[in-house]
Amino acid sequence: MTSPELEAIRQRLPGWLKASSPCSDRGKVASYIPELSKAPHDALGITLLSAQGESVTAGDCGLRFTMQSISKVFTLILALMDNGEETVFGKVGMEPTGDNFNSMLKLELVRPGIPFNPMINAGAITVSSLIRGNSPYEKSGRILQFLKELSGNADLEYDMGVYRSESDTGNLNRSIAFFLKENGVLGGDVEEVLEVYFRHCSIVVDCADLARMGLVLACSGLDPLTGQTLIPRRYVQIAKTFMTTCGMYNASGEFAIQVGLPAKSGVSGGILTFVPGRYGIGVVGPALNDKGNSYAGVHLLQALSREMDWSMF
Amino acid sequence: MTSPELEAIRQRLPGWLKASSPCSDRGKVASYIPELSKAPHDALGITLLSAQGESVTAGDCGLRFTMQSISKVFTLILALMDNGEETVFGKVGMEPTGDNFNSMLKLELVRPGIPFNPMINAGAITVSSLIRGNSPYEKSGRILQFLKELSGNADLEYDMGVYRSESDTGNLNRSIAFFLKENGVLGGDVEEVLEVYFRHCSIVVDCADLARMGLVLACSGLDPLTGQTLIPRRYVQIAKTFMTTCGMYNASGEFAIQVGLPAKSGVSGGILTFVPGRYGIGVVGPALNDKGNSYAGVHLLQALSREMDWSMF
Amino acid sequence: MTSPELEAIRQRLPGWLKASSPCSDRGKVASYIPELSKAPHDALGITLLSAQGESVTAGDCGLRFTMQSISKVFTLILALMDNGEETVFGKVGMEPTGDNFNSMLKLELVRPGIPFNPMINAGAITVSSLIRGNSPYEKSGRILQFLKELSGNADLEYDMGVYRSESDTGNLNRSIAFFLKENGVLGGDVEEVLEVYFRHCSIVVDCADLARMGLVLACSGLDPLTGQTLIPRRYVQIAKTFMTTCGMYNASGEFAIQVGLPAKSGVSGGILTFVPGRYGIGVVGPALNDKGNSYAGVHLLQALSREMDWSMF
Amino acid sequence: MTSPELEAIRQRLPGWLKASSPCSDRGKVASYIPELSKAPHDALGITLLSAQGESVTAGDCGLRFTMQSISKVFTLILALMDNGEETVFGKVGMEPTGDNFNSMLKLELVRPGIPFNPMINAGAITVSSLIRGNSPYEKSGRILQFLKELSGNADLEYDMGVYRSESDTGNLNRSIAFFLKENGVLGGDVEEVLEVYFRHCSIVVDCADLARMGLVLACSGLDPLTGQTLIPRRYVQIAKTFMTTCGMYNASGEFAIQVGLPAKSGVSGGILTFVPGRYGIGVVGPALNDKGNSYAGVHLLQALSREMDWSMF
Repeated sequence: MTSPELEAIRQRLPGWLKASSPCSDRGKVASYIPELSKAPHDALGITLLSAQGESVTAGDCGLRFTMQSISKVFTLILALMDNGEETVFGKVGMEPTGDNFNSMLKLELVRPGIPFNPMINAGAITVSSLIRGNSPYEKSGRILQFLKELSGNADLEYDMGVYRSESDTGNLNRSIAFFLKENGVLGGDVEEVLEVYFRHCSIVVDCADLARMGLVLACSGLDPLTGQTLIPRRYVQIAKTFMTTCGMYNASGEFAIQVGLPAKSGVSGGILTFVPGRYGIGVVGPALNDKGNSYAGVHLLQALSREMDWSMF
Repeated sequence: MTSPELEAIRQRLPGWLKASSPCSDRGKVASYIPELSKAPHDALGITLLSAQGESVTAGDCGLRFTMQSISKVFTLILALMDNGEETVFGKVGMEPTGDNFNSMLKLELVRPGIPFNPMINAGAITVSSLIRGNSPYEKSGRILQFLKELSGNADLEYDMGVYRSESDTGNLNRSIAFFLKENGVLGGDVEEVLEVYFRHCSIVVDCADLARMGLVLACSGLDPLTGQTLIPRRYVQIAKTFMTTCGMYNASGEFAIQVGLPAKSGVSGGILTFVPGRYGIGVVGPALNDKGNSYAGVHLLQALSREMDWSMF
Repeated sequence: MTSPELEAIRQRLPGWLKASSPCSDRGKVASYIPELSKAPHDALGITLLSAQGESVTAGDCGLRFTMQSISKVFTLILALMDNGEETVFGKVGMEPTGDNFNSMLKLELVRPGIPFNPMINAGAITVSSLIRGNSPYEKSGRILQFLKELSGNADLEYDMGVYRSESDTGNLNRSIAFFLKENGVLGGDVEEVLEVYFRHCSIVVDCADLARMGLVLACSGLDPLTGQTLIPRRYVQIAKTFMTTCGMYNASGEFAIQVGLPAKSGVSGGILTFVPGRYGIGVVGPALNDKGNSYAGVHLLQALSREMDWSMF
Repeated sequence: MTSPELEAIRQRLPGWLKASSPCSDRGKVASYIPELSKAPHDALGITLLSAQGESVTAGDCGLRFTMQSISKVFTLILALMDNGEETVFGKVGMEPTGDNFNSMLKLELVRPGIPFNPMINAGAITVSSLIRGNSPYEKSGRILQFLKELSGNADLEYDMGVYRSESDTGNLNRSIAFFLKENGVLGGDVEEVLEVYFRHCSIVVDCADLARMGLVLACSGLDPLTGQTLIPRRYVQIAKTFMTTCGMYNASGEFAIQVGLPAKSGVSGGILTFVPGRYGIGVVGPALNDKGNSYAGVHLLQALSREMDWSMF
């Protein structure tokens, strides 16, 4: 039996989706690699999954896309589980930057030259270097396995075309990585670290996968559908804080005010968010606004949060 | 009758305060004006006020100090009440900056050249310009009156020595204000805007005043002790978001992770924070860490939040 | 009797001017104050004055315009004559910046926070504060008198309309000045310093005036037409160096490579330059390129320098 | 028969050298790689070579050191000879930066994202990529051959220990190179470009070698000792301009004012400079000032230039 709230959502969601969909017209699909540019410009899909295992979907929720920056949340969590807080936060800070996600300004301007937070590229590359494993292959395998558990989807795989394109054209990330190496932040071989990084960005998901991962975060690390604790509560708390303060690139502050839920977006148009204790949510809408977030996706989440009064603030 | 939680706090607070107090040794009292440098270096005080009107205090909670940046929260709220969201956010952004609170870098580097958020000086000066009133005198009067209502303390007044010193030495704020005027962000006479700004920074409070103001925010704008709604809920939500993402200068991200409560600090060593729905909290500890927050005060709030499991994340 | 070189110039100059003139089409007349925007867009004029007192002119050399930044060269020289090198270079640096002439970035980013050089606004405002005199009136009077001597034109005067407009709208310069005051670079009253600064920017000249001033620099401080030494040789040397390394805003490097003469431009479209030992040159062409220099004026000087092989490099 | 000027220099040079030598006490030998840190801290040597082939030496002029940034002057010239002005200046600008030689700020902040000039690392790496040749080996060989001709020293060779260390630790240069590749400035393989760059920085010279190379520049590209034209005059002019505006890192403006000669310094403590038409000069003094130039070397050149009245300004 569906909860009354979920039932209300089910009935009203198609309308909200319809109202948000035209936003895509103003957005642009990422095109820095050909693989991303093929995404359907006007698509918009959403999946909500409740702690009781009920789901509501609308629109193009079956669309498959790469996780991109959304994966940063989970590599952070895995790095914390592998190393503890002290080690991780010795290498990456806790502060929002106000700069672009791929900016190097603060690495040069602000001592001690560690990345400001794990959600910007510099921070996420650093985090990738902290994943335990004897080889890029093993590290990547552990990340993929972790995401399979969180999503309950044993079939998660890389999009190797996206991976290779990202790797081939990822010169700005190489530049960042060598700068981090110069600063003593990054140990090991730069190309090996980047392989891990590019790989986890290339994992393919759909809205249901994101919703399930989000639900685990919503439930403080417990998968309510299996009863298993997959993440220590403290690390969920940390991830949740970063998602709130810097999960939506340079529109994180606005998202906090207008939506008020922890979230992480990716350049593929995906957004993972959740309502603490209640729902995991996956959204996809490939047309991006000028901050790099799904134009229609953000609009849809604003409507949902406002109508359901979900802001955590 | 005291609640069990408050009773537990009452018993353990002296111990936590004693453990936090030595942090002051590593801090520095603000000394850019003589009036601030006279504050007692080792002082540490705290007042908690519950929605039921019970309070717990410890240490130097009777110490009086100027609000400084803490006042930015309330001028933002008043500006929102005076102008609505659209007008206010046409002049000031919603994003954390990662720069110093008095930095001008992003005003020059990032178009459209409006302050990134209302908690940095550029933003707060802009907000001061939006307070309704026919003169600086009237505007300042309205702010003071608003704070009297929120604190339930009709005796709130300016420290005119601090005000004059801030005004005399406030050349960086003048520089910021003229830059904002150049950018078309600031209307009206710069010196008049700064008068309003310097005045609200100079309002004298103690921990009990902050706790009471914080309690109103904790109760979404309702003063639970009088039953009066003093602030529309939406504006509390906005203020709360800014306190979370940028209330503690460039240590806001860390505070969110380590304490997890909305808060705003001032250079006088004061911190206003609250536990949503439950407590308003005022803290003072004049010795500041290198981010400009009370060294001992932050330490004490970490202990409290961790022990009581108060993080909102 | 005219020198053969001058005779050659006289014959070919109209052709070069005709070839440079269309450049104005791509330029824009400064319009930040109405007074400047009235300048004739297509005008282009030049006056060369030899050490023997012969002059060659072409085009709109009779056009009158305000000195604007060109005056910075002479206030620097006067400040050096008033205070000596040590005092002046304790307050202002010697290095090109690569930033815009009105940028404040390096004041904030680079310690000790003094302006990088006297040709950018921050530096020139600082220099204005170092001119001897008991009042802005007296200081301005000394600058004007100095320029009358250098130009041999006792009728030089301010354009009071320009002065008032600059003063009314000069909020960015006010911002810079207060920042300098905060940094301890600027003493005295900010508005009084700015009055001196805005006034010397507003002195009206024509190409002949600039050529005569330039000739004194070309002759190391001696006015060859009167036999009087007006500037100590060392201070001419300093001014000449700054004109070479930072006289043409952010196109100084390119100008050094393409023209190779010490020069200073102004936003009114004027350029003062000289051929060491031989000629003073004044140019005017109000349509500016995107670096703020006269589009046609720079083109004309390139032709002249290339054809006459005048580069000092 | 020695010229009277050279004779005067010969007699007074030991005294000036003695007076400059103690400056080394305040300086620091570069230590970012072990090979450089072994240089003798107190050494100071100088060689002057006249267009008539007479030389004057003093101090440790026999000390051998790597060219480091001094080589940037000659790779620029070779790149111009290989490609012409248009191609080279399509990839690298002509302006001083005011930032550190290894800064990446302007690559990110200023469009179109090409290096500001060929004397900073970003510019010199770009220039290295423009040297003609089918392989790094061939390119490096052409540069070495060019320097052998200019120095008249067929024995010039790399210090392979320095080369390998620079290559092993050159992560900041790698970061810069990948950023340039991202910006479309750098073609080809990054590691191959860097190999060329690191190699030419590692060529070993002494003061006599620098003096001879400087003499060719002083004579506008003609080697007066052989009568051969080694560089087209126009490219010497360009190099000379860059040496004047940005040859001494962020002290180029001060050097222009205090010495007034075109010069290029290296982190090994070498300085190549020249008196146009008359002398080539090589200096070495490994202890560097905080701008990265030889402390004693700059002091010695100031004395020489002032006493002999050599400033070109």
